[in-house]
Amino acid sequence: MTLDDIPGPPRTTGKPRFVSAQDVARRAGVSRSAVSRAFTPGASIAEETREKVMQAAAELGYQVNDLARGLLANRSRLVGIVATKPEVGFRADLTAALAKTLIRRGSVPLLINTGETEDELTAAQQTLFGHRAEATIVLSGSPPSSFVDLARRNGQPLVVIGRSEPETDHVMVDNIAAARLAARLFVTRGFTLLGLAGSRSATPSIVEREQAFCDEAARLGATIVVERGPDTDYAGGLAAGRALLDGQPRPRAVFCVNDLVALGVMDAARTDLGLAVPGDVAVIGFDDVPQADWLAYRLTTFRQDPELMAARAVAVLDRRQQDPAGPLIAERIEARLVVRDSFAPAE
Amino acid sequence: MTLDDIPGPPRTTGKPRFVSAQDVARRAGVSRSAVSRAFTPGASIAEETREKVMQAAAELGYQVNDLARGLLANRSRLVGIVATKPEVGFRADLTAALAKTLIRRGSVPLLINTGETEDELTAAQQTLFGHRAEATIVLSGSPPSSFVDLARRNGQPLVVIGRSEPETDHVMVDNIAAARLAARLFVTRGFTLLGLAGSRSATPSIVEREQAFCDEAARLGATIVVERGPDTDYAGGLAAGRALLDGQPRPRAVFCVNDLVALGVMDAARTDLGLAVPGDVAVIGFDDVPQADWLAYRLTTFRQDPELMAARAVAVLDRRQQDPAGPLIAERIEARLVVRDSFAPAE
Repeated sequence: MTLDDIPGPPRTTGKPRFVSAQDVARRAGVSRSAVSRAFTPGASIAEETREKVMQAAAELGYQVNDLARGLLANRSRLVGIVATKPEVGFRADLTAALAKTLIRRGSVPLLINTGETEDELTAAQQTLFGHRAEATIVLSGSPPSSFVDLARRNGQPLVVIGRSEPETDHVMVDNIAAARLAARLFVTRGFTLLGLAGSRSATPSIVEREQAFCDEAARLGATIVVERGPDTDYAGGLAAGRALLDGQPRPRAVFCVNDLVALGVMDAARTDLGLAVPGDVAVIGFDDVPQADWLAYRLTTFRQDPELMAARAVAVLDRRQQDPAGPLIAERIEARLVVRDSFAPAE
Repeated sequence: MTLDDIPGPPRTTGKPRFVSAQDVARRAGVSRSAVSRAFTPGASIAEETREKVMQAAAELGYQVNDLARGLLANRSRLVGIVATKPEVGFRADLTAALAKTLIRRGSVPLLINTGETEDELTAAQQTLFGHRAEATIVLSGSPPSSFVDLARRNGQPLVVIGRSEPETDHVMVDNIAAARLAARLFVTRGFTLLGLAGSRSATPSIVEREQAFCDEAARLGATIVVERGPDTDYAGGLAAGRALLDGQPRPRAVFCVNDLVALGVMDAARTDLGLAVPGDVAVIGFDDVPQADWLAYRLTTFRQDPELMAARAVAVLDRRQQDPAGPLIAERIEARLVVRDSFAPAE
């Protein structure tokens, strides 16, 4: 079967439409099948015919129909990026890096900006299946089991970024090692009363960071005060920071579950409460978003590299496509401590 | 012609693939064409047959093939969002808002994260044409005339956001009115030496803002000092701010071509030069990105509403699809002054 077996679109008059292979054939004075062969690498075609086709195609502005190719293969070059609030914090950098990495690979990224309810995720998945997307990358939240199951039944590779999924290929940062290190660094500096600025949004990454920090701090004999803002963002950080730092005794060091929360905590400390950072309170964040390096903040944090994470996620896709029935792929990336002014570890 | 005229994918054994209409027909014990009719609104089919098909489809996890529908129509539901650095500043909010608006409309957004060279833009366009995207929305830069011409020849609606294009439908904010107002507000407050923190990136929006501010300030008798950073971002603002504020005489008020530049100018003033904002220098930005409202900045700025802009851009698409040969559509949206702490206009 070749592309020629697929009928062209119905003729309409006057209505604007894409230039078709038939248009090219007519202008070049060749058959429709010669146009297909001209655009198929390695296909047999006289050089003269090929040149005629290419010239006509350039004159008309024709582009090979990838939908037809995707239809024949029952799989398109489209790859879905499913994300909630892709404009916020580290997700913005990761979304952009994924799009760029996929384009370089020859894939075409679909950005499905969706909520996290099961209905919304199911709708996103139907869109991706309808377009025979070759793969789905889920950036946030936890896809429901029906989502994972449907992907499996349709043979569509699924990669989850940011959480450890027992039955789904995933790429995640080592939250636990980083959060434990934060606790050890604070205790080593002599702080005994520590604050944790968390989030009630309770995504798997956030929960890992909260739990690992508290467990390690407790193991080392420190006392921990926990406050959680409504969301994992600047406003959530302001709320958590005010609650943590306005009372007595006041923690001298605060670990924050991400940078936006940390920047909110810093502003609550300085603007609302007149405290100095790091003089009165030391702060560590997580992500290394661009704002963490701004002069007003100079936040000490754990860096997730969006380009590296995107590259790894796409590498997982490649491996899965080559070995559809292979064992689970679980990639864990180390988060690197970036020391700036909001906290300096002991020498 | 119906979907049945399109042959199914070649049978392969063992390799994972999407559930096909043929799989559903086999399981339901009906013809391939009955499956098509069951999924075509208004098509004639016995209720019992339809139910059998739907049950088999649900059991198998089948999803109608939108590629086939797109192929028949020679136009898919895909809409391209072409953007350079979609993760930065206002573009992140606009990209996310466009994706959400398009999904609500029943379209599927493709995120083409591309550079601004003609080659890169041409490659992006070929991808979109190859997928018979129903429309392209260009977020940044200025598409070359070949880009606009190819879209026209293929009957693909093209909407440019953020610049006034004489031959292309566009949506833009009224940069000129806002920049003029900034100059008037500064002069009315009694400032006679004004700074402009611009950008050498010289996109059309940036040029409009720079020029309108300088023209209006000069018209009102003020003296203007201009400094431009390498890019329209925080680092560019730091560079422009240091150059503007480190010398004598020092401007008492600075208009910045966007918020990221303004936040860099504020940090240069306060952290590097020990100046107070607004005490020593007043600052006005443009965009109203989320960081403009952070307590460390509280930036007075002109708000562009990303949801409103996305809705207008999609409305322009709708109008163009309904009237392909109609006159140019040019939408201009007012930017609203948001007064915070970095500058308060005279009463």
